[in-house]
This record gives sequence, structure tokens and C-alpha cells, in this order.
Amino acid sequence: MAESLRHSALFTDLYELTMAAAYFENNFRGQASFELFVRSLPKERSFLLAAGLDQTLEYLEQIHFENDDIEYLRAQPIFSHLSNSFFDYLKGFRFSGEVWAIPEGTPVFGEEPILRITAPIIEAQIVETFLLSTITFETLIASKAARVVAAAQGRGIVEFGSRRAHGPEAGVLAARAAYIGGCTGTSNVEAGRRFGVPIYGTLAHSFLMAYQDEEKGFQDFEKLFPDHAVLLIDTYDTLDAIEKIVHAGLRPRAVRLDSGDLGQLSKQVRRRLDQVGLRETRIFASSDLDEFVIADLLAQGAPIDNFGVGSALATSKDAPTLGGVYKLVDVETNEGPSYRAKFSENKVTYPGRKQIFRMRDENGIYQEDIIACADENCEDENHDGEPLLSCVMRQGKRLAASPSLDIIRAVAEKEIADLPEGLRDLRIPGKAYPVRFSRKLEMLLAEAKQRMGVV
Amino acid sequence: MAESLRHSALFTDLYELTMAAAYFENNFRGQASFELFVRSLPKERSFLLAAGLDQTLEYLEQIHFENDDIEYLRAQPIFSHLSNSFFDYLKGFRFSGEVWAIPEGTPVFGEEPILRITAPIIEAQIVETFLLSTITFETLIASKAARVVAAAQGRGIVEFGSRRAHGPEAGVLAARAAYIGGCTGTSNVEAGRRFGVPIYGTLAHSFLMAYQDEEKGFQDFEKLFPDHAVLLIDTYDTLDAIEKIVHAGLRPRAVRLDSGDLGQLSKQVRRRLDQVGLRETRIFASSDLDEFVIADLLAQGAPIDNFGVGSALATSKDAPTLGGVYKLVDVETNEGPSYRAKFSENKVTYPGRKQIFRMRDENGIYQEDIIACADENCEDENHDGEPLLSCVMRQGKRLAASPSLDIIRAVAEKEIADLPEGLRDLRIPGKAYPVRFSRKLEMLLAEAKQRMGVV
Repeated sequence: MAESLRHSALFTDLYELTMAAAYFENNFRGQASFELFVRSLPKERSFLLAAGLDQTLEYLEQIHFENDDIEYLRAQPIFSHLSNSFFDYLKGFRFSGEVWAIPEGTPVFGEEPILRITAPIIEAQIVETFLLSTITFETLIASKAARVVAAAQGRGIVEFGSRRAHGPEAGVLAARAAYIGGCTGTSNVEAGRRFGVPIYGTLAHSFLMAYQDEEKGFQDFEKLFPDHAVLLIDTYDTLDAIEKIVHAGLRPRAVRLDSGDLGQLSKQVRRRLDQVGLRETRIFASSDLDEFVIADLLAQGAPIDNFGVGSALATSKDAPTLGGVYKLVDVETNEGPSYRAKFSENKVTYPGRKQIFRMRDENGIYQEDIIACADENCEDENHDGEPLLSCVMRQGKRLAASPSLDIIRAVAEKEIADLPEGLRDLRIPGKAYPVRFSRKLEMLLAEAKQRMGVV
Repeated sequence: MAESLRHSALFTDLYELTMAAAYFENNFRGQASFELFVRSLPKERSFLLAAGLDQTLEYLEQIHFENDDIEYLRAQPIFSHLSNSFFDYLKGFRFSGEVWAIPEGTPVFGEEPILRITAPIIEAQIVETFLLSTITFETLIASKAARVVAAAQGRGIVEFGSRRAHGPEAGVLAARAAYIGGCTGTSNVEAGRRFGVPIYGTLAHSFLMAYQDEEKGFQDFEKLFPDHAVLLIDTYDTLDAIEKIVHAGLRPRAVRLDSGDLGQLSKQVRRRLDQVGLRETRIFASSDLDEFVIADLLAQGAPIDNFGVGSALATSKDAPTLGGVYKLVDVETNEGPSYRAKFSENKVTYPGRKQIFRMRDENGIYQEDIIACADENCEDENHDGEPLLSCVMRQGKRLAASPSLDIIRAVAEKEIADLPEGLRDLRIPGKAYPVRFSRKLEMLLAEAKQRMGVV
């Protein structure tokens, strides 16, 4: 899908580099494992849809410091006294580690590692910021999209939010993630080019305002795009605009409503379109939509065929951040590998590399997830859950090409269908999906606490 | 500040390109003016701080279509039947227009044009998506930062949110905007390199977890960064960590708290630091902070010197979108220039190019803004307000280099100080800042409605 953005290795928090220097100068080069997860779901979500892995792996394969990156660092007061050897190390820096990950499009829950990195500790540390922002943002948007798509009950949702996204690049990533979450496509052309997301477009008010003569505007646009034109009819007077379409003898593929009472208007518009023989003309609606507005419109029987959703989707407006974390779980010391845990108030991190086992009933419906040690034998827990994390990168190289976006989207659709009763409801159920830690993991945490003298 | 990102001309909504094709094929080449504004402030904001202009102008100076952009478009079913001449036009596409803008760092309110573009209509249309996402995102974050900075009453705020931003690039733009809004700096190294934002870093839990021996971790880090080290003390037990610092004989520049009851803990930590003669050691706090938490901590007398603010700032979590719009206000026709207005329900757009006049009292405090016609004589309204929009680009070239980020930040600080009573309060005042349209503009709207037959 054409060239990708060059991601500077400086896309990181300064402390990653100061810690890198301290590890380097103190000859601390052991392998470390970090896990990326969301501690708990926002109260507005009952599941998340993992996304962003492909961008993450692409970044890990190409991360390096350019000379001017290093010159910039060297000139910072905090680094100016460091030896050349650290900067020489940065010159040769590449990511040489191993990555385990949950496939994109898979539902995940709080505490579940979406990704695990095992690499020399400096490498694992420097990539933290990029990985967190990429994985949690795409996961955020894919998860929101799944809700909007569910609300539309089979009608198409086009992601329309580029102009409201957090900068141009966020719009492109949002479009990709929204497609994974089940959207039909996006208005963002760059997302089409870069990721192959299907692109859709209608018509802006400005076009009809520029023409002044609305009917002439409709005619010229329809003439140029006979099979694709979606005519925007609310610039001046919605019902009047339909008469102009009829008067001009046009048969647009669809008309778009972008203001007013969409429930009422869509019924009036449908009735009139049918009266004049434009039964094939679809109704496309936009205007500050989200999953609740869409569900409400459909409950009213609004004859809307497709929806364009902008701000609410591209910014996950009701829950605009996931609070993802990236935690050290083990590290190689002179005495061999050793677990790591953290006990800060309300921010406990379980020790050791983990695997998630997902239990399903005989119909494939999710029953329970168990977060266990990576090397744990399922049988210890008397379950036959499927492991969710698999190895996708070794020694800094992908083990296989990522699945196509269409496959990821299809996986997501199937997996969402397998969620237990209530989890697809727009109103969040009182009972969260059951996720527990294995007995072995609970024991490891207790041991780690004891070892560190924490009661 | 080193190289900037190449922004593909495909960072746009598909309809901009279909409309461009329609304008092109129908020989609609007149100059058009579009204004970018926020219709109304989110209810969580009493003013906005304009930001993002520099990135906008940089984009306008370099926008063009690469051959592979054009090949991608040509391959899309919607475009495949178009003539070569449209694609040839795109090959030569450059932005040749004029831009008027409010300087970055200036407070703005609902309905006030932050930017006005006058250009051949195709050019003005294609750049819409990029301009909206860039200006409204940076404005969003600068505005949020101003609130967080106000809450800290002179204490430093470091923007810490890259990992929670909407993708890596959003983190870089957020860091720039947060600095304009008054933050001391950012943790984002790329924002330091690209924009010269001061960069700050502390220490992560992972570092101390990797060492296992917390005291040894503190020692090694402090030894390497004697003047800069901010030691994170809550990995296991906060007060115990202080004893380790004392035991090791360290004199850190600061200690950082990242969990627990920050009000209580900061008092205990301050007391202990003072007891052991570490009066110079500052206290830095983070952990899900926002303007309300900071105000509350300071009201409790928490002896915190600096704050790190992440998610709430980098995503403007309480109001994550501004709903910016970009509206056609006039267009050149065969009969000469002509105003354009829009009357969709609740989405009226006033006709014609505008200027904003800001009235101040004798102390420089803002009193009222009047949105008037661009060519309006201030005296018609008996006021002597200062015009806020000035011409910054002509024929696609900047008229001057942008002011430095430090100047923009200083302007913002001064202008925020000039806001009327109540507008800097964290709780939004019942009374909004007064912004009205000039009498001439109200008349033009009435005329336009009459002309279009809207009552």
C-alpha cells in the first residue's frame, strides 16, 4: 500500500533515553519482557477490539536513529556530559527482540496483555511510547467502531471523522481501526491508499453554495459521477431540494441529510422519493451521530440506509483514552531470569510473562478468560482454553506477513458475534466479562510481595 | 528544527476530490473564500487558544500530488472514467491562495474565524480536511493546557501524554500546543527536536524494577545525571524509598510521586525531606492529573512543585473535539464576487469574508468581540477594536516567518491575563464572553436569506 511514514526514533519520552543511558553506562544489558495492557475498561465499554499491531511491527522493523537525531540528543544539557560510546550505541541501534501479540480484531478485556516484548532492556524501553500510543489508539477506535456498527444493525457506517481527528495522521489511523471495527469504509483518501480501506465520498454544502443554483449543482455532479453521486440535500431546504432533483430528472444513487430532525426528515424524504419513482435512491445520514443516536433513529423507524459518523468515532468522544500501560514483568540478571512485579497503590502488576486462555462453550461463545503464566500447562487449571498470544516477531523480524485488513475485519466480526449475551449491548451491562488470574500467577505475586517485604 | 513530515495531498476527504473534479470539468475556477471556525465552545471551556497555524502554512507551501498519489486515484472506480486533463491538473497542483489568520496563542470564541482562505475553489476545497484537523486539534490542546496551567498557580506543568495521545504524531502536535498553552515543556523528544519544545524526563517504574535493589537503581541514575535526576519513589513503598535515598547519601533534584493519595503523601515526603536536610529537593507529582485534581491538591496545601499531566491534557479528555467547520463565505462568479450563506437548521453560516474586532477597556481587559465584514469600517459601529485577522500568506507564500514558539507562548500568557473576570475560572461561568455580529453582517444574512427565498 505505497510508502509508509518514516517514524523517527525520537518519537519517545525523554526518560526512555535517560534510562537507556543509565542501563548502558552500568552494563545492564539483560533481556527484559514488557507487557502492554489496559488496566480496566472505560465504563463506557464492555469489550475492546485489539488493533494497531501491523503499524507496531512495521515500526519495530525499521526503528533507528538518524545522525541528526543523535546530534539533537547530544546537544541537550541532560546528555552533554555522556561518553561517545552511548551515542555510538544509538547509531547502531536496531530492535532485535521478540514480540508476542493477540491478533488484530480480537476482543480483549482489562488486564489482558495485548502485546509482549522480550528484548535487551534498552530496546524494549525505547519503543514503549510509540507502542502504547499506536496500539491503544487503534484499539480505542476499533472498539468504538464496533459499537457504532452494532447500533446500525447491518446498515453501513462510513467513518467520516478525519477533520475532527487529533491531527491528520490520527485521522488515517482512525480510518484503519474503524474499518477493523466493522465500518464499511472511510472518507479518508490517504487511509485508502496506505491501508486499502474502501473510500467513500458525498458532496459538501460548499459545492451547492458555490453553484448558488442548487439544481444546476446537482445536475453537474450527477452527470460526472452517475453511479456514485450522493447528493446533499439540506443546504437550504431539504424537501425543496428533492423537487429540484425530480425536476432535473436525476436518479441519484443516494441523497444525504446532514441537519435537522433526521428521524422525521428521513421519513418525509423516503415517502417523496418513493412517490416520484426513486425507490432505488438510498438515504445517507450524518450530523453528530453516535451509537445512541443511530439506535434511537432506527427505533423510530427512520428509513436511513447508511450513516456517516465523524467526531464521535474518530475521537472515541465518550471515552477518548484507554490508559494503556507497558509493564516490566521479567528481566535477565546475572543470576538468570527473574520475575518482576509492582505494588504501587491500586497499580499492581503481576510478575512474569503471561498467556491468556479463552474458554468457550460448545457454541463457541466466550465463557471466561484466564490470564496465566506463559509456560503454564492449561491442564493445571483443568481447562482447554485457546491461547490468545502468539509469537509474531523474532530477532526483530516478522515471522509472517500480517493478515490483510479484510481478514482482520472478518475475524473481528466473527469474534464479536461470539461475545456472551449482553456484551454487545450499547448500555454497559452491570456484570463484566469474567477474567481471572491463574492460581499459579496469584502464587507468584504473593511470593514476589514476600520477597520484596511487602505484606 | 530538522526535517518535517511529508504530508501527502491525499490527507483529504474523498469528496474534496470528487468536487474538485466536478469544478474542473465544469470550468468552475473562480476564487472562493472559506472560513474555519468553531461554532460554539464545548460546555467545558470558556475560551479557546488558537494554535496550529504554523503547521497549516507549512502544509500549504508544500502540498502537491506525487505520481503514486495520482495513480492511486486513477485506479479508483469513482475516478476511472475521468479525462486525463483532471489528473494532469492534479500533477501541477499547488496552493496559490491567500490566508488570513488569528495569530497562534490568541484567545478565540465560538463563531470567530480562526483562519480564512481565499483561493481558486478547487485548492481551497482540497486543503479543508488537513486544515480542520490541524487547527482544531492544536487549538483543542492549547486551550486545555491553559486551564491546567491556570490550576497550577505558577507551578510547572510538564506535558506527559504522548503514550496516551491519538497515535505518535498526535503526541508531537499535542506537545507543541501544550507549550503554547503555558506548559513548561514535554516528555516528547520528537517535539523537542521538531519544534524546540523544552524536554523533561524522570524515571520509570521499570528501571527500579529491573534493578530490584531500589537503592542501587537510585544511586546509578543519580550518579549519571547528577543535576537532572528526578527519582521515582512509589514503585514499592514511597516513604521507605526516601530512607533509601538518605541512606545512599543522594541529593536528587526532585522526587516523583505517581500513585496513592498525592495530597497526604506529598506532605509526608516534604516533611521527611526537610528533616534530613533535602530542602532543595523538589516534589514532582503525576498520576491521572487534570486541572480539577491539581486545584484540589493545592487547596489542600499539598507541597508539590511540579506536575506531569498526561491523558487529560494530550487528549483533552473532558472535551476531546471542538467540532470545527470550514465554510464557504464568498465565491467569484461570472458576475463578479458574490456572498454565500447557509441556512441548514441550527447551522447558519454568515455570508462574506469577515474580520473580528476585539474591544478592550482602559486596562486592556477584553470587553466584547464584534464579528464584522472584512471591509467594514470600524467607525460604522462606533468602536475602535483591534482587528484580529491579518494576512499571513499571499499567492501560496508566507509573508513572514512564523513567530518563535516562545513568542507565541508569551503572547498567549499575556492575552490570557487580559481575559475578563471569571473566564479563567475552572468552573465555567454562566455568562459567556460577549461576541456579536455587526449590524452590516446581520443585514447581509437577511438579504441572502431573502435572495434564496428562505423566510
